[in-house]
Amino acid sequence: MNLMLLEKTDFIDEGVAEIGGRRFVHAMEILKMAERSGECKAGIVGGRIGRASLLAVDEAHQTMRVRFEPLRDPPPALPLVLLCAMQRPLTFRKIIHAAVSMGVKELHFFHCRKVEKSYWSSPQVAPEAAMADALLALEQSVDTIPPQIFFHDRFKPFVEDDLPGIVAGKRWLAAHPSGTAPCPVDISTPAALTVGPEGGFTDYETGMLAEAGAELVTMGPRILRSEVAVPALIGRLFPGR
Amino acid sequence: MNLMLLEKTDFIDEGVAEIGGRRFVHAMEILKMAERSGECKAGIVGGRIGRASLLAVDEAHQTMRVRFEPLRDPPPALPLVLLCAMQRPLTFRKIIHAAVSMGVKELHFFHCRKVEKSYWSSPQVAPEAAMADALLALEQSVDTIPPQIFFHDRFKPFVEDDLPGIVAGKRWLAAHPSGTAPCPVDISTPAALTVGPEGGFTDYETGMLAEAGAELVTMGPRILRSEVAVPALIGRLFPGR
Repeated sequence: MNLMLLEKTDFIDEGVAEIGGRRFVHAMEILKMAERSGECKAGIVGGRIGRASLLAVDEAHQTMRVRFEPLRDPPPALPLVLLCAMQRPLTFRKIIHAAVSMGVKELHFFHCRKVEKSYWSSPQVAPEAAMADALLALEQSVDTIPPQIFFHDRFKPFVEDDLPGIVAGKRWLAAHPSGTAPCPVDISTPAALTVGPEGGFTDYETGMLAEAGAELVTMGPRILRSEVAVPALIGRLFPGR
Repeated sequence: MNLMLLEKTDFIDEGVAEIGGRRFVHAMEILKMAERSGECKAGIVGGRIGRASLLAVDEAHQTMRVRFEPLRDPPPALPLVLLCAMQRPLTFRKIIHAAVSMGVKELHFFHCRKVEKSYWSSPQVAPEAAMADALLALEQSVDTIPPQIFFHDRFKPFVEDDLPGIVAGKRWLAAHPSGTAPCPVDISTPAALTVGPEGGFTDYETGMLAEAGAELVTMGPRILRSEVAVPALIGRLFPGR
């Protein structure tokens, strides 16, 4: 937690928030707010970043009050939409973390042939769980703007009905070991990046993506786990911001 | 396991290997070698890549014999030495996986101020455990050449005595949020990349690294977990190979 994220509902008075639960424990035990400067970086979900100053800890030592002073805007978003095949739940969480901490604000997860159907029923890929993980990634990367996360549990309708609108006006890349072009670096336009499932896209699927307008790009002959490929690809496409 | 790694000690005859344990279970249960084509990609540790063809499964169903036919060389190594502060054990394992699967062949882990001393005594960071993880990363990325992994448990002697020889003749970059230059892309020279601990380098440490010749580079204002920063940085420095 490099930033304490405050929700509007945390505020009990103008500029004063009351914090319990995980954030309280982290602030006390890891940041040691009571023993050190009494301050930490904080930000309002969807809003500005500044600092929280410790005002008081309640007698039961379960909540604290902080004064929040907003100072600056969060870092700019990456102009990148991530379109990722659904992954096994632990990998899904790692990809959420990597993409959101690198500044991605729109993520789509979709079904395709080599995605196990059981993944879709895991509680870890439920929208609320995904958003909780996304907020942790914002706290890690000192950002306040939550991403939008969308789920598409059928491939063909996703490609035919949803994709055209999502990729319109963007440079659309699909990473695939069989891609002929190397993944470009530091592109200057908004982009969409498609990443396949653990077992890869089928030929039918890459055909559909190419037909729909995706550039098939490659990171070389090595087969990378999705949680390694995603930050490596994003790192290439845009300098950090 | 996109490649079955064979050790020389697996061979019981010219071109014939006997496989038990994890690799046997994976070949049978995940690759379903007995039910499908009876073949899988295989390679000899330190040697060529080709295919293993199933010859026989023993009666107790615990080992199999394969015929190995070598066909091509492994993919080229990345001309990059990774110098990483020691991490908490799970993060250490993720970094080994990311770096080795992307083709890094020389890794150094070192102590510094914000590394918890307890990390060094974890069984997961022992050299044999690290090499076992590195071999899994080779299996993932279809490579056969193991990396060399070095450990340096004192910062000052590492910087003063070991670093000059390690970075000699290489472009040496140290990633740090306070770096003034953006991380370069697709560099053409051999390189060394230094990554700090979870809490970052101290000013004293970045001073020592800069004094010793490191270029301090940044991925932007976002604070990334090491397991995200490492693939993002490597992805920038070199196209996949």
